[in-house]
Amino acid sequence: MQYKNFVLAPDSFKESMTAKEVCVAMEKGLRKVYPEANYIHVPMADGGEGTVQSLVDASGGELLYAEVTGPLGQKVTASFGIMGDGTTAAVEMASASGIHLVEKSARNPLITTTYGTGELIRECLDRGVRKIIIGIGGSATNDGGTGMAAALGARFLDAAGEVLPQGGGNLNRLASIDVSALDPRLQEVQLIVACDVTNPLCGPTGASVVFGPQKGATPDMVQQLDANLAHYAEVVNRQLGKNVQDVPGAGAAGGLGAGLLIFTQAVLQKGIDIVIEYTGLNAKIAAADVVFTGEGGIDFQTKFGKTPYGVARAAKAKGKRVIALAGYVGAGIETLYNEGIDAIFGIVPGASSLEKLLTEGPENVERTAENIARVLQFGESLS
Amino acid sequence: MQYKNFVLAPDSFKESMTAKEVCVAMEKGLRKVYPEANYIHVPMADGGEGTVQSLVDASGGELLYAEVTGPLGQKVTASFGIMGDGTTAAVEMASASGIHLVEKSARNPLITTTYGTGELIRECLDRGVRKIIIGIGGSATNDGGTGMAAALGARFLDAAGEVLPQGGGNLNRLASIDVSALDPRLQEVQLIVACDVTNPLCGPTGASVVFGPQKGATPDMVQQLDANLAHYAEVVNRQLGKNVQDVPGAGAAGGLGAGLLIFTQAVLQKGIDIVIEYTGLNAKIAAADVVFTGEGGIDFQTKFGKTPYGVARAAKAKGKRVIALAGYVGAGIETLYNEGIDAIFGIVPGASSLEKLLTEGPENVERTAENIARVLQFGESLS
Repeated sequence: MQYKNFVLAPDSFKESMTAKEVCVAMEKGLRKVYPEANYIHVPMADGGEGTVQSLVDASGGELLYAEVTGPLGQKVTASFGIMGDGTTAAVEMASASGIHLVEKSARNPLITTTYGTGELIRECLDRGVRKIIIGIGGSATNDGGTGMAAALGARFLDAAGEVLPQGGGNLNRLASIDVSALDPRLQEVQLIVACDVTNPLCGPTGASVVFGPQKGATPDMVQQLDANLAHYAEVVNRQLGKNVQDVPGAGAAGGLGAGLLIFTQAVLQKGIDIVIEYTGLNAKIAAADVVFTGEGGIDFQTKFGKTPYGVARAAKAKGKRVIALAGYVGAGIETLYNEGIDAIFGIVPGASSLEKLLTEGPENVERTAENIARVLQFGESLS
Repeated sequence: MQYKNFVLAPDSFKESMTAKEVCVAMEKGLRKVYPEANYIHVPMADGGEGTVQSLVDASGGELLYAEVTGPLGQKVTASFGIMGDGTTAAVEMASASGIHLVEKSARNPLITTTYGTGELIRECLDRGVRKIIIGIGGSATNDGGTGMAAALGARFLDAAGEVLPQGGGNLNRLASIDVSALDPRLQEVQLIVACDVTNPLCGPTGASVVFGPQKGATPDMVQQLDANLAHYAEVVNRQLGKNVQDVPGAGAAGGLGAGLLIFTQAVLQKGIDIVIEYTGLNAKIAAADVVFTGEGGIDFQTKFGKTPYGVARAAKAKGKRVIALAGYVGAGIETLYNEGIDAIFGIVPGASSLEKLLTEGPENVERTAENIARVLQFGESLS
């Protein structure tokens, strides 16, 4: 028997290669040994950074750009994707409202806003899509998704009926919410929210306490933001009849999880499961002799919903072999063997700085894939 | 079919692991996948550093120590080996007369001596061996092996019949050689000299011109040393009737190659071939399903007689599969695939300093070997 069908389903190697580039490098290496084989590229992601790129690449879609409002009100150019089917959009909140858009010294979750994320959703609605996949990792915000909703027509008012300034720091003054002008298309479009955390909106495991500090919140701010989100939830519950405070994932992205549940037709799903579904990975795996996956780093955390883990589970469900490549092979990889990753190889050729390795990703993936293929070949002559 | 027999024949990973330690780490990794397999350890070397250790380890011999004269006359503790058969000794000239024993600022090939190497040979003779394998790489000397011969009883005299001081810088005054007191056992013991270079004793590709500078010789010194070795060869030819000047390898180790040919029953052989012979590699390979080799670094230079190349050639002669591991995978490895190395894997887990990697060698070899074994297993279920 000879290996004939390879499915290449890696994540990106962050700061080094997009998932698609990893696929190309893998194929180059494997093809030296198996020139006649079929190579199916399924550039993957796990709902985090690179998810839009992966969904666009995997579906033959289009990456688009829009000028939107950044976390501090500045203009930023954010990207979003329309998948190959033309009816599904993909958005990463971080592209408009991400922590990387705010310098460390300027980080202040009292005033940062998800407004730009709402604008991105509107851009998608304007293109007539039926579904929007939205990744919500990496946020700079703690506003409960009120900025997002405001961009789509909701009005957050104080006791005097005045519109509140943006930011979670002002929600203590929230008296009422006017949804009369909320974009009606939101009721007809499904938002599929890639969310791997189960934090509730408030309390000791809520958005402010757990994620506030990494967004620049002092202990005082954390307390204030947590109280503000609790007040916000209370107003929502009283006025809109929606009780989202304790829904697992409501606390994701500074409460954007809650905001999406309140103001849109949102379902929360694990990021990797969404990507597996919308890349059609399962159907593509069916014919594979061996599935290759990989990510910049693989370690014990990989089994917490990262791409190689998700790919391996999908492959194992069909009895397929899985080999993973990584730029960094960390502690605890032996726990992954039982989760369906049959073998894991580092691609690093020797002592080297990270900086240098990031530029050499493609050649290192190619060489490693080629040598793995050379060992795969051993088996073909066994009898 | 299942893999049942593994031959582990790596070189040392310099500054990280002895060849034997590499064997142990390889077995640990492979055994996780193949607990019932047979593992034959053949710790290898190529005639350079680590050769004595390898021959002792591979044969179940003994490593011994002797206080001898260093390159600058200081006392040094040098090691040598008696192999498991009890009749073959192994010596590295560098252990007694190596460049690493002389601080950079003190390097002066006019005065450095191979006397300690002669003392090591005498130690071996005293133990009644029939053969002495001698690796001659890494010398600090340029004395034509006169120091070595002096330690064994030869006397190098000036015109007044006075014994010359040690060092290649004094050979211009050589008038005659008295071999009447040369250790008679030297005529009954074979010296097998591990020598991979083909340089003649003198001239533009001779010992002084090619290797003098790295031992601290200035251009003036190089000229002087080259003339002195030519004069030495002339005296030898005239008085002892031996013409060694143009024998390939005579210029190795500052002319120690010539000295051994003149004063002992020496044969020059490629280092890797000697190690293959005296470790019994060929017989051990015969039963192997897969042969593992490796070295600290593998690149285009590997095919110039390094261990993984030699092991691969020996394995290919018997139609065996060969997999190599390396701490550093360099340029040009694709040329090795045709030389019998089927696949090459780096062991480095990620961006890291060399210093740190050197301490983590065993775990990195173990992990990589395990994952290779996991891929080898794929083949067993093909049909």
